[in-house]
Amino acid sequence: MKIALAQVNYLIGDFEGNTRKIIEYIRKARLQHADLVVFSELSVCGYPPRDFLEFDDFILRCHHQIQIIASECKDIAAIVGAPSVNKAPKGKPLFNSAYFLEEGKVKTVVNKTLLPNYDIFDEYRYFEPNRLFNIIEFKGVRIALTICEDLWNISDDPLYIVSPMDELIGSKPDLMINIAASPFSYLQVVERKEIMIRNTRKYKIPLVYVNQVGAQTELLFDGGSMVVDSDGEIRKQCNLFEEDLTVVDMDHLPDVQKGGFEAGDDKISLIHDALVMGIRDYFKKLNFPKAILGLSGGIDSAVTLALAAEALGKDNVRPVLLPSRYSSDHSITDAIQLADNIGCGYDRISIDKAFAAFEESLAPVFVGLTFGLAEENIQARTRGVLLMGMANKLGYILLNTSNKSEAAVGYGTLYGDMCGGLSVLGDVYKSDVFKLAHYINRDQEIIPLNTIIKPPSAELRPNQKDSDSLPDYDLLDQILFLYIEQRKGPADIVKAGFDEKVVNRVLRMVNSNEWKRQQTPPILRVSYKAFGSGRRMPIVARYLL
Amino acid sequence: MKIALAQVNYLIGDFEGNTRKIIEYIRKARLQHADLVVFSELSVCGYPPRDFLEFDDFILRCHHQIQIIASECKDIAAIVGAPSVNKAPKGKPLFNSAYFLEEGKVKTVVNKTLLPNYDIFDEYRYFEPNRLFNIIEFKGVRIALTICEDLWNISDDPLYIVSPMDELIGSKPDLMINIAASPFSYLQVVERKEIMIRNTRKYKIPLVYVNQVGAQTELLFDGGSMVVDSDGEIRKQCNLFEEDLTVVDMDHLPDVQKGGFEAGDDKISLIHDALVMGIRDYFKKLNFPKAILGLSGGIDSAVTLALAAEALGKDNVRPVLLPSRYSSDHSITDAIQLADNIGCGYDRISIDKAFAAFEESLAPVFVGLTFGLAEENIQARTRGVLLMGMANKLGYILLNTSNKSEAAVGYGTLYGDMCGGLSVLGDVYKSDVFKLAHYINRDQEIIPLNTIIKPPSAELRPNQKDSDSLPDYDLLDQILFLYIEQRKGPADIVKAGFDEKVVNRVLRMVNSNEWKRQQTPPILRVSYKAFGSGRRMPIVARYLL
Repeated sequence: MKIALAQVNYLIGDFEGNTRKIIEYIRKARLQHADLVVFSELSVCGYPPRDFLEFDDFILRCHHQIQIIASECKDIAAIVGAPSVNKAPKGKPLFNSAYFLEEGKVKTVVNKTLLPNYDIFDEYRYFEPNRLFNIIEFKGVRIALTICEDLWNISDDPLYIVSPMDELIGSKPDLMINIAASPFSYLQVVERKEIMIRNTRKYKIPLVYVNQVGAQTELLFDGGSMVVDSDGEIRKQCNLFEEDLTVVDMDHLPDVQKGGFEAGDDKISLIHDALVMGIRDYFKKLNFPKAILGLSGGIDSAVTLALAAEALGKDNVRPVLLPSRYSSDHSITDAIQLADNIGCGYDRISIDKAFAAFEESLAPVFVGLTFGLAEENIQARTRGVLLMGMANKLGYILLNTSNKSEAAVGYGTLYGDMCGGLSVLGDVYKSDVFKLAHYINRDQEIIPLNTIIKPPSAELRPNQKDSDSLPDYDLLDQILFLYIEQRKGPADIVKAGFDEKVVNRVLRMVNSNEWKRQQTPPILRVSYKAFGSGRRMPIVARYLL
Repeated sequence: MKIALAQVNYLIGDFEGNTRKIIEYIRKARLQHADLVVFSELSVCGYPPRDFLEFDDFILRCHHQIQIIASECKDIAAIVGAPSVNKAPKGKPLFNSAYFLEEGKVKTVVNKTLLPNYDIFDEYRYFEPNRLFNIIEFKGVRIALTICEDLWNISDDPLYIVSPMDELIGSKPDLMINIAASPFSYLQVVERKEIMIRNTRKYKIPLVYVNQVGAQTELLFDGGSMVVDSDGEIRKQCNLFEEDLTVVDMDHLPDVQKGGFEAGDDKISLIHDALVMGIRDYFKKLNFPKAILGLSGGIDSAVTLALAAEALGKDNVRPVLLPSRYSSDHSITDAIQLADNIGCGYDRISIDKAFAAFEESLAPVFVGLTFGLAEENIQARTRGVLLMGMANKLGYILLNTSNKSEAAVGYGTLYGDMCGGLSVLGDVYKSDVFKLAHYINRDQEIIPLNTIIKPPSAELRPNQKDSDSLPDYDLLDQILFLYIEQRKGPADIVKAGFDEKVVNRVLRMVNSNEWKRQQTPPILRVSYKAFGSGRRMPIVARYLL
């Protein structure tokens, strides 16, 4: 049997567009003599549809599209993902389902058993878990069809009390098919492969795994669809970060495929490719061609600009230099050098006039008070107003340039440098931003060396350096990683070898700045614990303060 | 047996503070000869602790406090809520538990069965559901102890396939006790009572119900703890929106209690009281005494100021008039009249100077383009910078004054009038803001009549009115209610009697402004579908656009 793996980039709620793509892939697969073409989880509506699932109208539209897609399935079968209605008198109203389409109609519907509800996932919010386990027979092949998380309950410390394949294996399937919407993180690419390999080794039958590709706002889907044989060898893997249609003859599997990403491979190149895809899809799916951003001469805005230029083209990025009385000469020359290296041009607007107007207007209420944080924030916000003004006037989207270290400790001005439609680096620690800069410069110097080597500074008062207010980033990032990614408490972090006072100070900064983070733009998620929907914290609380 | 209902206001993660309060209430109850004192769900850590639950350190601290509280339980028993560790090899790591404390130690732990995971709830994110059902015996009374949602699966269309009381009733309990963290909405106060009455009528035993009170960021808990007899009559109800300790002799129940809120009672007075509590707790728990806000002369900022003055005291609110060249005379006189009525004083800072500086600075990049939305936004953002500057400099929190109608259709400037630490009216439709104004004026004119009767305007260009860009609020709010609260699709809304073009336009505005709403401050939740954690939408999508 020939199976086509259709790794497609969907747009949530774009029913006509998604159906058009699905039909196009069915036709391509038919031309390549596939018997069955497999699409990813919730492909008809795009994943994750979130609370659109609570609208009957949305569900009806899904079902309408399935009829259209089914009518295309002649001489070829297809598996697509969509919600289905739970007709039982009790339980949640929907299932997360895989539709097996054959001979112009829906042959059978399989529901998802394990509903992830951690990190960025909310599936138990919408769906009732499946409790019925049946095999699908197609052209003499007995298929165990599951959906994403259904294959992930295979660790030594299982999160769920049921494992769907344990239920299905008794019916002696010949083949597993899993349709997925498994988001990227720099560890997930390898972990996902390992999980799939573990499944084939445990159940001793081959696996066809099809994942979604493309960005859905902050969630990045890398694809990496694959065929694994019954010995746990990867026989085929689709490209990462792009659409792909791969037809595999299951009776004559291709040779074992070497290469692709393995544990220990460079996480920085993965993050780079993921961010470029994330920027590109955000703009493309919102139908905005152009990005604007502030260029400070520092490393965060430099890396953001380089990534945006790669994603959108150098003619679609518009960097703006916004110097002030506190800007150093090198901040201007480094920024200009970068724009020249990229070849994108730049604008230059001083903030001094507007800042002076604010100082003058506020003088009566600030009387007797000395220059401080408030004035620093006013400068950052003046930049925000200028950039947003240009974005609004000229039809651009403003890119946010904050990194994860800053976002964590609240070292940034809300409504100032924290503005933007999309945060590119908000899930990349400062130490990794430096590595990204080197990676961007791997073939030639794009980001000026001086931008990389000079000490980071916000330049909001004379001779300011980040290290005046924060521990060195190398130290800070280690503590943040233990707290945010590893969820260690203060005692464990101190035990890992860090100074107690510094640890307590950093944790206090993280927790007391939740109010800022909840007003920031969506952050492209590249780690397994990003700020945003995957990390949900109260604003008003007194833990570790 | 005498049972004390302890309706307490907790601070999330404030272990010492919460324990201090719990012990104080235990002592008070002991003085009143109570046999048992009942606290609400997750009382030890405060509800909802959200992802703090994923930190082992946080769980350990809960358990440490439980030991301290238990040691206080001599001559009196207590029920407190806290997470407990799931020791089974499979399943999620925690239970949401009720600890029965007696004779200085933990006598038994009961786990929650039904884990709400809709709207603002995320309990399945953290907790494994209970599957064991046992009665607690205490002083000869057989108690069926459950936690919040456990009693809510009693509709004709049940969300869960199990109902804990159906399992427990076979063991012939004498009494139900339910500990809850059931947030306010203007319908919830009555619905909660009806659910509790339905339980007692079904199971034919009395019920002691204890709810949390107080605001947790955007979530408002009204309390309303109660004792219902086995015939479904309310024998005692605690006060709404305040802490309360009520001791009830279960062997000699007080007479049936009449009064309290019933269906059809004025939702506006409930919303008023909830918002005042929400503002008060936000500031108190963050330890900020003072609020600042922009006063436009319009109704939204007027109502916000009046509510804030009631919550924080007139000396703790600082309204700022921020007129521009487009401000009408009445916008200034109405604002001043309001400040005078409240007796809070005000500041006045023109935005013209800073706005002119922005216009001048941007002239080179705006050359040839005419005044438009971008310039309107710059004015709003100039106000944002001035207000945030004062807030930062003087140690205030800025109150946001946007209403739900504006937030829904994106009629507001991000980083401008959408700034603030807390949105007071973001869950109140414009038509209800008018009713709130009348309610605030119920004894005397606080909000000037002219503010209530003049046509709403943003005053960002000459002679601007909201009705230039939006349908009339009465019409708009009806369509928004059907779409947001009722989750009707466009076809159903048109069927309800609204013009198709207007419906499609409004729905498109709602969906295309999700990016703005995800950068707004937390919104005090008074309806059953507020913007914020209870409504989760993708930013990049094409549904109804």
